[in-house]
Amino acid sequence: MSKFWNPFIKQLEPYIPGEQLDDPSIIKLNTNENPFPPSPKVLAAIEEEAEKNLRLYPSPTVDELREEIGSFYGLKKEQIFVGNGSDEVLALSFMTFFEPGKTIKYPDITYSFYPVYAQLYQLDVEEVTLEDGFTIPYESFFHSEGGVIFPNPNAPTSLYLELEAVEEILKNNPDQVVIIDEAYIDFAKKSAVSLIDNYSNLLVVQTLSKSRSLAGLRVGMAMGHPDLIEGLMRVKDSFNSYTIDRLAIAGAVEAFRDAAYFEKTRQKIIATREDFRQELEKRRFYVLPSQANFVLASPADIEAEKLFIELKQAGFLIRYFNKPKLENYVRISIGTKEQMTKLLHAIDRITKE
Amino acid sequence: MSKFWNPFIKQLEPYIPGEQLDDPSIIKLNTNENPFPPSPKVLAAIEEEAEKNLRLYPSPTVDELREEIGSFYGLKKEQIFVGNGSDEVLALSFMTFFEPGKTIKYPDITYSFYPVYAQLYQLDVEEVTLEDGFTIPYESFFHSEGGVIFPNPNAPTSLYLELEAVEEILKNNPDQVVIIDEAYIDFAKKSAVSLIDNYSNLLVVQTLSKSRSLAGLRVGMAMGHPDLIEGLMRVKDSFNSYTIDRLAIAGAVEAFRDAAYFEKTRQKIIATREDFRQELEKRRFYVLPSQANFVLASPADIEAEKLFIELKQAGFLIRYFNKPKLENYVRISIGTKEQMTKLLHAIDRITKE
Repeated sequence: MSKFWNPFIKQLEPYIPGEQLDDPSIIKLNTNENPFPPSPKVLAAIEEEAEKNLRLYPSPTVDELREEIGSFYGLKKEQIFVGNGSDEVLALSFMTFFEPGKTIKYPDITYSFYPVYAQLYQLDVEEVTLEDGFTIPYESFFHSEGGVIFPNPNAPTSLYLELEAVEEILKNNPDQVVIIDEAYIDFAKKSAVSLIDNYSNLLVVQTLSKSRSLAGLRVGMAMGHPDLIEGLMRVKDSFNSYTIDRLAIAGAVEAFRDAAYFEKTRQKIIATREDFRQELEKRRFYVLPSQANFVLASPADIEAEKLFIELKQAGFLIRYFNKPKLENYVRISIGTKEQMTKLLHAIDRITKE
Repeated sequence: MSKFWNPFIKQLEPYIPGEQLDDPSIIKLNTNENPFPPSPKVLAAIEEEAEKNLRLYPSPTVDELREEIGSFYGLKKEQIFVGNGSDEVLALSFMTFFEPGKTIKYPDITYSFYPVYAQLYQLDVEEVTLEDGFTIPYESFFHSEGGVIFPNPNAPTSLYLELEAVEEILKNNPDQVVIIDEAYIDFAKKSAVSLIDNYSNLLVVQTLSKSRSLAGLRVGMAMGHPDLIEGLMRVKDSFNSYTIDRLAIAGAVEAFRDAAYFEKTRQKIIATREDFRQELEKRRFYVLPSQANFVLASPADIEAEKLFIELKQAGFLIRYFNKPKLENYVRISIGTKEQMTKLLHAIDRITKE
């Protein structure tokens, strides 16, 4: 605390990210990173760009990347906003589309940055209680006063909400913005991007940190009606004109161009997830039917927190949330097949002690 | 305008950056970029990092870079904050240290992002009128209600305020934060960093975009008392945990390590600036005594706006501000010796027509 801080700042409770360790001896399955490196073409594009014009400012409108994302999804660049990771995109979206005094809705179990943004922008919130089994009661999101946000698939539950239900939420909030945070969508069924042309109140947020193996590069995006995108640009340009550096632009463009690599690594992770889920079930874990690159699982033969601690001692970092309804669960990111096999052996050793 | 925008957002007037053109046939002297590429060691560090762990999140606390900057300036890492360009650092600083209802002060002619931040955070502002000749009347910054910010050297005036005057401003605002925006300090006399240990209300903001040739990489920093830095970290962690990507961290670390390259290029620009100033004076321009990597100059034989337009047609991009007190001036970034010679020839052709 300091007398120099704005009094409002003194009350903030910042987000606490999962542990980031560069120790290569640890198998890191705690922040849902991709176990595969980015496409070699991405690295080549970054190295080529580094040699060019790093002394010059990047494009403040990032048109080249927006066009590339547009051609991947069949959208115009005016329907695409990019930011410094999807966290920045979400922060700017909360500021642009939600308003103090008008209650917004999000699930009671969800991405833990949402309450931090709500606090930062002094928003009123209704936390919608998930059903037993963590499913989203989509009708509870109808008729919001100030807007809706939820991840699809939800985190840390890993559960996917069918697009028919998403569409009902959109129809029943015609004058509010509905933000679908699709950080994990490439490991799930269908993106809500297909609904953008029909719903001007839909904003879809995605990231290159998970399915495109670029957590270290910091690129996220929002897609929606050009009016929504224009609002985000106005706020961005009132905060920081150049949020994406030249190397990130070059790498992200190539990440969308190399669709074959994306498809191959994405399918490998989905296959590993399904195998891992079966293996956990054999070991008497209850595992939610994940559509993400992680599973939320509850062990029958050991306390979840104890498993988390003992795995850490054994060199495996997973995530434990000491929160209501989640006390009996651990969240485990999907790594390579080899990493998951090693993890299962470690679980066997710990539970059979 | 859209019904989905927060009403406050509808009133925003965003910052408009100088034109960014990638056309290599244009000599670009409009946004104060460095004409020299970054150190070859910076590029090597970026390429090495790209091959490593781009799939993993960067460090949210960016300790390695903070330690490197600390060792350059003789500060502890707890006295250093880094952000996604100094624009982001300034935006977060406005939010952390200034407060609606308490009037802050900045010069009436200054960096045009300040009024945008003030509007974004709904701050009350007193714009202090510069003296004739654009010097800062430093006593007018005493006893501010809510804090002080100004660039040193000021932009776009290019003028440096002596540290004795800066110190008087600090002494006469003991309960307010005084932000010195030192974007151009490496082309000037002495940084206010030397005052940090004596004034807990001092925040010094710098950037790697100018003197370190890394505008394309987006790294800026703030230095001050650990309490101020802690406040900035709280706000950053309520907005976006990972603002600096892995490549930017690696490049920035090396930019501080390679002090010899920094010194060599910095001195070249200062020497070119002094030569260029004399040449302009020979051509009947009034040139302010610049301590930056640009000059603010007023031509006697042609209207400033006309010069700007005709130089653009001739392939030279400089900056013209259509603003009170600046109508008769152009701002010209200092490029290489060769670029400035070409520019002088073009000016000769235009003024002798």
